[in-house]
Formats: sequence, C-alpha cells, structure tokens
Amino acid sequence: MYRDKIKVLDCTIRDGGLINNHDFDRRFVRKVFKAISEAGIDYMEIGYKNSKELFSPKEYGLWKFCDDEEIKKITDGIKSKTKISVMVDVGRVKLEDVKPASKSPVSMIRVASYVKDVDKAIYMANHFADKGYETTINIMAISKDQGVELDEALHQINEESKINVLYIVDSFGALYQETVEDLIKRARKIIKSKEIGFHGHNHQQLAFGNTIEAIIHDANYLDGTVYGIGRAAGNCPLELLIGFLKNPKFDIRPILDLISNEFIPLRKKIEWGYIIPYAIAGMMNEHPRAAMALRKSSKKEDYREFYESILNTGLD
Amino acid sequence: MYRDKIKVLDCTIRDGGLINNHDFDRRFVRKVFKAISEAGIDYMEIGYKNSKELFSPKEYGLWKFCDDEEIKKITDGIKSKTKISVMVDVGRVKLEDVKPASKSPVSMIRVASYVKDVDKAIYMANHFADKGYETTINIMAISKDQGVELDEALHQINEESKINVLYIVDSFGALYQETVEDLIKRARKIIKSKEIGFHGHNHQQLAFGNTIEAIIHDANYLDGTVYGIGRAAGNCPLELLIGFLKNPKFDIRPILDLISNEFIPLRKKIEWGYIIPYAIAGMMNEHPRAAMALRKSSKKEDYREFYESILNTGLD
Repeated sequence: MYRDKIKVLDCTIRDGGLINNHDFDRRFVRKVFKAISEAGIDYMEIGYKNSKELFSPKEYGLWKFCDDEEIKKITDGIKSKTKISVMVDVGRVKLEDVKPASKSPVSMIRVASYVKDVDKAIYMANHFADKGYETTINIMAISKDQGVELDEALHQINEESKINVLYIVDSFGALYQETVEDLIKRARKIIKSKEIGFHGHNHQQLAFGNTIEAIIHDANYLDGTVYGIGRAAGNCPLELLIGFLKNPKFDIRPILDLISNEFIPLRKKIEWGYIIPYAIAGMMNEHPRAAMALRKSSKKEDYREFYESILNTGLD
Repeated sequence: MYRDKIKVLDCTIRDGGLINNHDFDRRFVRKVFKAISEAGIDYMEIGYKNSKELFSPKEYGLWKFCDDEEIKKITDGIKSKTKISVMVDVGRVKLEDVKPASKSPVSMIRVASYVKDVDKAIYMANHFADKGYETTINIMAISKDQGVELDEALHQINEESKINVLYIVDSFGALYQETVEDLIKRARKIIKSKEIGFHGHNHQQLAFGNTIEAIIHDANYLDGTVYGIGRAAGNCPLELLIGFLKNPKFDIRPILDLISNEFIPLRKKIEWGYIIPYAIAGMMNEHPRAAMALRKSSKKEDYREFYESILNTGLD
C-alpha cells in the first residue's frame, strides 16, 4: 500500500522559527527532536545556517545560525534515526563556515532559492555536496514564477547540480491542486535522476491536500510541521500527513503527545493557522508580509479594508 | 473561465446550528442572510424542518424547526436573490406540515439520508417535489458506505426520484481527493439527468481541497459555510470557495465583514475548526461524536489516549 521511497521532513523548528525569530529554547527543541525521532520521521530541519556577520545573535535565537555545537546539545542522549537538516538562503551563509559533513551533526543542507538565483543556488548546493552533505534546492514562491525561466532553471539544476532533491515550494499558499499537478509533472519531466519534493503553505487550507496531490504525481520528499506551525498560516500539519501515509515506520502518537503538551500552550503565545488576512494573501498570490504586519496592528480584524488595499495596490 | 452552472449553497446556520442546538438569534441570522445575499450566493440553508412532536422547542432554537413565519422574519426587508433551503432528515418531519412551495418562503428542501434509507428519502423528496420545491437527496456518511449498495441507491435515485441534485456528503471528513474523484465519477455515471453536489467536512483540513476536486470532476452544487463553521471541525469555508470561483456574480467583501464583525466574536463562544480529536476521527473514518464528547470533558487535550481508545475499540 505505501511507497517506500517517500521521505518525510519535519521543519517545525525551522519554519516555526520564522514567527518567533528562531528563538525556541533548548528544552522545547529537544522535546520536538525526541518526538520526531520516536515518530520515525526521516529528517528534522532545525533552522537556518546564517552568517553571524549578517544577522546579530542578539536579535535572533539559536536556530537562525544552527551552530553544530548547539545542534549536538539537542540531539545528545536521544535515541534517533532522524537525520538533521538545515536550510540556507542564497547569499546569507559563509560557505567556509560549514564544516565537512563527516565532522557535523547535520546530514542535509537545503538551499532556498528564487528561480532567478538558481546559478548561485547550484553553486552553493554543489559546494555542500562536495563536503559530503545530502543537498536539495528549494524553489521558493513558485506560484509567481511559472514562466519559461522555471523550465530553464529546472534544466540547469538537472544538468549542473549534484542535489538529491528538487523541491517545489508554495511560499504564498497560492497553489491549487491543478497547479500542483502541473508543476510536479513539469519538474518530473525535466529532472531525471533526482527526487522531487513538495513544501506547502496553508494560507487557503490547502497545504495537506496539495501535499497529497504532490504524492499522487510522484513527489517523494514531503515537508510537514507539528500542528501546522510555520510562517503566517503555517504548513502541512505533520500529524495529518502521518495519518495519511500508510508506512508502518511512522507512529503518530509521540506527535499527539507533543501537541497536547507543548503546542497547545505555545499556540496561545504565538499565532499561526487559518487567519483571514493570510487566506486573502494566498488567494491573491501575494507574499504574506502585509498580512503579517496587519496582524500586529490595531486593524488586525479589518479584513475588508485589507482585501481592498491589496486589490487596489498590490503588494509588490 | 468560470462554469455558469455552478451553484453555491451556504449552510452556515444549518450546519453551524449543530454546535449550538440551532439557537442563533434573529439578529444574527438576519446579518448572515444579508451578507450572503450581497455576496451573490445562490442558496442559504437556514436550518432543519423537524417535527415539534419529536423535538421540543424548549430544548432547541428556532432553526431546528424553521417555521415559515420565522423564516419570513429573517428575509423581510432585505433585498436578495438568494433562495432559501431547509434540510429534512428521514423520519423526523411530518410531511403534511410542509405547505406547498407557492405559499412558503422556502425554495429548496434537501433530504439527508443514509444509503440504507434511500427508499424513504426518495418518497419524501418526491413528495416535496410534487409540492413545487426544488429537491435534493444528500447521501450522508458516504465514506462508510461505498459498497454495491451505494450503486443500487444511485440507480434508484436516478430512476425513481424527481430530485434536482444528488449530493455526496463527507460527514466524517474522511475522504481524500482520490476518493472524492472516484465517488463523483461513480455518481456522474449513474445519475443521468440530475446535477451532482458535494458537501465536505473539514476534520483533516480537506473540505476546501475536496470541494475543488469535486468541481474538477463536474459537481456543480457546492456547500460552504462562513469561516467554515459547522459540526466538529466544520465545513468548507465559504470565503475560500468564493475566492477560488471566478464567477463575477460573487463578492467576497460582505463575507469578510461578516467574519470580522460576527464570526470572530462567535468563535470565542463556541468551538469549531482544526482540533486534533476531530482530525483523529477523520483519519479513522469515524463519526465525530466521541471527539465532540471529549471536547466537553476534562480530557479535552488528551489526544493520545483518545487515539488509542479509538484504535482499541472503534466508535460504532
């Protein structure tokens, strides 16, 4: 019944970090790592690897930088087959700061890139591959970038990169399942010897449905987060994905405990999920930043005004 | 771009009534009717038509009974092209209490039925059709009833009923888009001269995605509720559906105002939406009644125990 090739990547701490400046404390991150490990999830992405010359550790939490020593404090003493992943953005990491994989607790480095930056992304990913890491390129905001440039980027990635997985990323939560089908098929056609992955956003409550759609069309690397935490509306809820996949290696129960004990209290402190301004941004195919700003203002529930402001001006 | 045949039915008050004993006050229901009318929604389902001999008006609000005079108090003085619908359950209405359509503010009567009760449903629907109403049969809990009996029921409905629309109802929020595709195609093949409709439940955040799937496979009658209100996890959010459909007759703005002004405050008083025990019931293909009971108990956040109780005993 299940597809053995499917790998699930939990990015709770990484994408969730986008709503709290990556400032989860070590106790919390260990709880997450333990539950993710017990649940049999293949990868856990713990944060971004950013240069401390570009971002100040005074302003951001540990998981904006993901020092190897900090990661070891999380994983030490916890029995786990879960591999650790970190994300890097084009232009925000000093390559020489990254040790060879053999000396690091990190197994996978995912390079987030817009279509236009694909040359840089390939260069970076190949650098990390040469250092022994599994690598991916995650094409962000793909709903805004479906022209011929996308095909060109995919061809380049296929021919020039050493990555293991090419990810389609619906950063704006704007894709419907027909678009997901089209994009996955398009990538599948060009990307010959690498896996395809999908990372959804939940602005229109479609992250899980779109992930299923991606599975149907042969994406094998799937992202989820505990209780759907993540920027703006958040991501595909990991618990739903585990409930759907039939692979007996997964166990939903540690995730359920984690939600009961950690995420229900956390949700009272920081906000994500189905919130109308994010839905509006999704249906308009726009970055959620204006909606995120609205949610911090006194007009947080003035949906019509927000809708009309996007209609009239756009966000870009 | 859009499909002219598509009709949207708002069942905010009817399905939402399942979480508050149908006890919305007249002011609130008028606000909803006004917004639904301004938004250009085709139908608004206002409640159930139940016999007062079976249910006491002391225990339930107005919308458990939907007296014509009460409906008129809602619609009077509001400019509207929206037709009024009511739902009836097999065996819970006295047919002779229902006036001819020409003397009623109601345009459509929807008969909710399990597969096993289809003979009774056809009898009732034909009775209402003869009285001049548009009619539908809504096959509930279809995720539990996909055997040959379903085909038999569909054949009977096709041959013996006078209904306008046959609805597929995912009462348990258990369908994935592949199942929706299969069920809609199966119904479409048997039901020749009637429209197909879809009513989703949101236990696994799939109500909207499944509704899109139904549209893709030619369902033309689509249910939604404002802010997704409805039993347990609720329904397909009407605002997302309107955002997706391209028909220029729809206007999302009155719905946005309604959510800001009425549904954000209401949500603080009564509960619906993405809540883990409902997700568990959905993935287990079970009625949400045990999950609803859990949410009223002191163990409302004990998800693992709830999951294991269903695993070990089932709910039926």
